Amino acid sequence: MRMSELLGERYKEKPADCTVESHALMVRGGYIKQVNTGVYTLLPPGKRITTKIERIIREEMDRIGGQEVLFPVVLPADLWKESGRFTSVGKELVRLTDRWGADMVLGMTHEEAAVHLARDAAKSYAKYPFMIYQIQTKFRDEPRARGGLIRVREFTMKDAYSFHTSQADLEAYYARCYEAYERIFKRAGCKNVIAVLSDSGMMGGKVSHEFMLLTAIGEDTLVICDSCDFKANLEAAPSVVDNSAFGAEEPLTLVPTPEMATIEEVAGFLHKPHTSACKAVVYQKNADDSYVIAFVRGDLEVHETKLRNAIGAEIHPGVITPESGIVAGFIGPMGLDAKKITVVFDRSLEGIGALVCGANKADHHYTGFNIARDYGNVTYLDIAKATPGGICPVCGKKTLRVSNGIEVGNIFQLGTKYTKTMNMQYLDENGELQYPIMGCYGIGVGRLAASVCEESHDEYGPIWPISLAPWEAQICVLRADQGEPKRVGEELYAALTKAGVETIIDDRPVSAGVVFSEADLIGAPIRLTVSPRNLADGMIELTTRDKSVKRQVPVAEALTAVLALKQELFDRIEGTL
Amino acid sequence: MRMSELLGERYKEKPADCTVESHALMVRGGYIKQVNTGVYTLLPPGKRITTKIERIIREEMDRIGGQEVLFPVVLPADLWKESGRFTSVGKELVRLTDRWGADMVLGMTHEEAAVHLARDAAKSYAKYPFMIYQIQTKFRDEPRARGGLIRVREFTMKDAYSFHTSQADLEAYYARCYEAYERIFKRAGCKNVIAVLSDSGMMGGKVSHEFMLLTAIGEDTLVICDSCDFKANLEAAPSVVDNSAFGAEEPLTLVPTPEMATIEEVAGFLHKPHTSACKAVVYQKNADDSYVIAFVRGDLEVHETKLRNAIGAEIHPGVITPESGIVAGFIGPMGLDAKKITVVFDRSLEGIGALVCGANKADHHYTGFNIARDYGNVTYLDIAKATPGGICPVCGKKTLRVSNGIEVGNIFQLGTKYTKTMNMQYLDENGELQYPIMGCYGIGVGRLAASVCEESHDEYGPIWPISLAPWEAQICVLRADQGEPKRVGEELYAALTKAGVETIIDDRPVSAGVVFSEADLIGAPIRLTVSPRNLADGMIELTTRDKSVKRQVPVAEALTAVLALKQELFDRIEGTL
Repeated sequence: MRMSELLGERYKEKPADCTVESHALMVRGGYIKQVNTGVYTLLPPGKRITTKIERIIREEMDRIGGQEVLFPVVLPADLWKESGRFTSVGKELVRLTDRWGADMVLGMTHEEAAVHLARDAAKSYAKYPFMIYQIQTKFRDEPRARGGLIRVREFTMKDAYSFHTSQADLEAYYARCYEAYERIFKRAGCKNVIAVLSDSGMMGGKVSHEFMLLTAIGEDTLVICDSCDFKANLEAAPSVVDNSAFGAEEPLTLVPTPEMATIEEVAGFLHKPHTSACKAVVYQKNADDSYVIAFVRGDLEVHETKLRNAIGAEIHPGVITPESGIVAGFIGPMGLDAKKITVVFDRSLEGIGALVCGANKADHHYTGFNIARDYGNVTYLDIAKATPGGICPVCGKKTLRVSNGIEVGNIFQLGTKYTKTMNMQYLDENGELQYPIMGCYGIGVGRLAASVCEESHDEYGPIWPISLAPWEAQICVLRADQGEPKRVGEELYAALTKAGVETIIDDRPVSAGVVFSEADLIGAPIRLTVSPRNLADGMIELTTRDKSVKRQVPVAEALTAVLALKQELFDRIEGTL
Repeated sequence: MRMSELLGERYKEKPADCTVESHALMVRGGYIKQVNTGVYTLLPPGKRITTKIERIIREEMDRIGGQEVLFPVVLPADLWKESGRFTSVGKELVRLTDRWGADMVLGMTHEEAAVHLARDAAKSYAKYPFMIYQIQTKFRDEPRARGGLIRVREFTMKDAYSFHTSQADLEAYYARCYEAYERIFKRAGCKNVIAVLSDSGMMGGKVSHEFMLLTAIGEDTLVICDSCDFKANLEAAPSVVDNSAFGAEEPLTLVPTPEMATIEEVAGFLHKPHTSACKAVVYQKNADDSYVIAFVRGDLEVHETKLRNAIGAEIHPGVITPESGIVAGFIGPMGLDAKKITVVFDRSLEGIGALVCGANKADHHYTGFNIARDYGNVTYLDIAKATPGGICPVCGKKTLRVSNGIEVGNIFQLGTKYTKTMNMQYLDENGELQYPIMGCYGIGVGRLAASVCEESHDEYGPIWPISLAPWEAQICVLRADQGEPKRVGEELYAALTKAGVETIIDDRPVSAGVVFSEADLIGAPIRLTVSPRNLADGMIELTTRDKSVKRQVPVAEALTAVLALKQELFDRIEGTL
């Protein structure tokens, strides 16, 4: 490719609407162009990167026995009605009708389509296990598109579905897929991807992992133990506290707390630590707006997703109306109408002898509140956020820390949620009908490209790993208006291309500053600079985009040097596998 | 791949709903599964074929300087409003709204998206010409889905867009693309693809060609001259007649023709040939239901698309109401209200001295009607269907014949329709703003796969060309329950796979009949049969699916023989280029 022919402009200035560095660089470098909110066109350099990612994914999926298929983008709503997700999924699922008025949806994930395909094709146990995958466009009407390709509405995704006759077989395959994912991210040049336990959310199923690229701009909060292997998404991290020091009981006492509606005010006034407060957080169910009041130890916070999973209902932060009978600022367990209000206790409250809680009466709290004694037997649920410095649920040490990450992939043990609802069965060895057990496995292609850029760039542009770079080598010809640099540049371009090095040459009659700054935006790992000054000594300059190499090479040896360097860069990646 | 692991069933019986042979075979062979009307999932063998087609297309697009991009599937309606197609295109265009109520469409073609991308990236003449292409999913809400992948609603398409600064430059590139298309279809193993002139339809623009695979099940009617190179879609074929023998005038005479409302009846009664009849065909404009009456020579037929293009309005067959004042069966030019009715004369009527036409009065016709003398000066338009045995518009010989074809690709010279409506401009050498001239170029990937199957099959299954076959070779192990056939089969499988021959092995403990009939449905061009009988002589049987090769080969020489045969089969295709 020639820079003079490459479609797209490269820009010096950071676009005003870009808050994420990789987003700005991919716009400035002519990789992507926004078409709509969260919808992008990929320009040639962007497409070359995603093509390479797709190739790596295909190779690794094939290596673990995957069979590539292609499901439709536009699916009949009937399939989603079978699984129940036509109604259970919110506005993320785009619903539309065809010319005959039939309901359809835009595929945002393809469990239903996979079961539709497999339920005809795998009626005997002898067909199991198997895994099918596709790489295809999906649309999810995401309300918070951001960061260029990091969070979009339309995206290319690899989604895979495996089918098994036993949980043990699923788990064995799940482990293979886990390893394949590790290989994929390493081959894509990611340096800091970790797998964390995740919440299965709307996918159903139980065990699941997310592969997270650690970066400050990541939207996901991860809880990592520095003493053991425990790693989890905050929403999937159990919150563990030690209340053994707080066991002493006190008599229940109603105390006036005039105009003190916050934990800080009440605890300060009563000279009690936050750990003795029984904090109330109010939500409402999406379905009927009925109230859900969650109680949690005063120093902790409720995690909305954990609460939603614990009660099995969609919720939103509550609005306390005068008619509700709820006394904002003074809410406590005693006296709440349990018929109208769902009351939930976090397990951080278990074992505390004497709590401070609201009295459901303006300007009053109780002290000495003991849940078992004063309220009754309750089931404590895990709905609080784990905290930095908190107790690891696996090793028990207080070595949790919190980090941010971008989810670049996920794997789920789905179980029989879809095979049961969609009535997919097979005959087992004994001639009996059984429901297959499923796993599913996703990777967002464009998000991975953007994540790699986010992890690997400097202020001048992306520093692409050689496995993803749009071009492996860039030839920068300085003073292309002079015969000699132009001639040598062209010869090198022909030689490198012939030798299988993906090369782009910049032979435009522009200043060295423009040549270099645009080369930085293209981010090819290997750079050859052909300038009159070096040529006077019969040399070209060979550098790497990551600045680890910078040396003069005789023109005649340039091809050999580039081939060796390319091999070395690939070897570096291979070495991580 | 192993047949025992390949996902999908193969069926003996032809599905009841399949009227097209390739459709039946692709269902029976486990290539496709219908998900919705005109919407299919591709199973692994189907996906392998389309992947190969996509690779061939990419190579040929890259060879003519194409740059691959990826446009969105879901486009903002605003872009289609800019071009005017949001309103001008009918229900084929799926319209939907997002969570915020914004109008969107499902891309059925991407001229708007291409201009949206290019108008920022090509503001100077120095950037021209360039061509961008994508291979992606499209959805067109086609009312007449049929024939499996032949005519669908959702499909994978390669669409390419070129931009030029002069018509001459467009034409030069158009010719290169034409050649690339010829190479693509030959490399895909098509034997009977021809390029025909086509109607540009809703795409706008003037010159366009369709690449047609000739087959009896084709929905398109093609007009081909056996004396010269003329080939056109019926809707784009000029109709040429010779009226030099019919020049003699006669006096205009009103004659009673009681209850004779057809050309046959009137011509028979008056002893006149059909060529002297001025036949009326009634349409109505979609926009306002106003009438359009087309007159054509009695032996010819009006082509609705040609008429639509000639008058520049969407039309449908007319319904004659009592209020219309039109006298069905007795319609003629004289006396029609030209203010209310659009009157069109086909050029087949030009130069006829004496016509028979309706008198716009029940049970009456005129004889001796002369258009110029009795009606006035009219502009004759070309709205009739060309006919077999008719006059070629290029060489003038009466050597036209009619054939059927499936459109497997098309190329259009679009002109400035989209760049003008969407205000894409560049600065020319003189610093003046100009509109680029566009071309666009499409190939339906799935339809091509189905068309090749339609062209190349027997009653037992597809006979895939080696360039598209899901597997190049199939090893059929007979009596796989015996040690020796199984062992030799496995060794050959390992050796062929290692040598780069894409191989599928059938080692299931099933009957020879099942092995062979399913191998026929898979359609691998090379087959190795490993049976106890041949092994007794140290041989395997090497055959081709097209039955051109059938011989015994010593086991030790099988690999060499297969490699040579594979090369020969590829050489056969190369030889056509």
